[in-house]
Amino acid sequence: MISYDDFVKVEIKIGQVLSVDLVEGADKLLRCMVDVGDVDEAGNPVPRQILSGIREYLDDPQSLVGKKFPYVTNLAPRVIRGLESNGMILAASHEETLGLLVPSADLPVGTRVK
Amino acid sequence: MISYDDFVKVEIKIGQVLSVDLVEGADKLLRCMVDVGDVDEAGNPVPRQILSGIREYLDDPQSLVGKKFPYVTNLAPRVIRGLESNGMILAASHEETLGLLVPSADLPVGTRVK
Repeated sequence: MISYDDFVKVEIKIGQVLSVDLVEGADKLLRCMVDVGDVDEAGNPVPRQILSGIREYLDDPQSLVGKKFPYVTNLAPRVIRGLESNGMILAASHEETLGLLVPSADLPVGTRVK
Repeated sequence: MISYDDFVKVEIKIGQVLSVDLVEGADKLLRCMVDVGDVDEAGNPVPRQILSGIREYLDDPQSLVGKKFPYVTNLAPRVIRGLESNGMILAASHEETLGLLVPSADLPVGTRVK
């Protein structure tokens, strides 16, 4: 059991996939640039590189481009195959099936999931 | 920033809404019975009562019945308006708009989201 405070430590936000690239030599990985609502001093979006191990489930990884999904946005960066990942997509899989979590309405990037 | 271990302490599972009731005197609340994969010794499903503050966003709360959504399943129980809630739906809202998180594929109840 956890407390509500434990839960809210985990920051989950709506992000939009801007681009998807395969990672050479890593059959399961996708390297995505994702807008999770970060902006620079001038207010311009600053996308993050986020690696996701979902390639094997997808017929067409490019179909993710433009879509919005929930991402954990305050995980310490992790280096995978020499690439830094600054977040994690929230999804569920069972056997060969991947369930991405699709917002039922269009929400702005950076909207908190709670 | 949090660690991956902090994240996995939060148990998020796919649950299916079995019934939805309004809560008298509480305009924002819905009382749902949700199958998140719990079973008794005989293997029969044991639904949980979960309260969600999403009523004001929905034209027809009964439209939730049968749908699957991600739920935080290891939160300490909370009593709201005298009713115990044993979990929390994960969703995002912006102004008047609620985004429920709809799995893109049919996954069994109890599937872990991570």
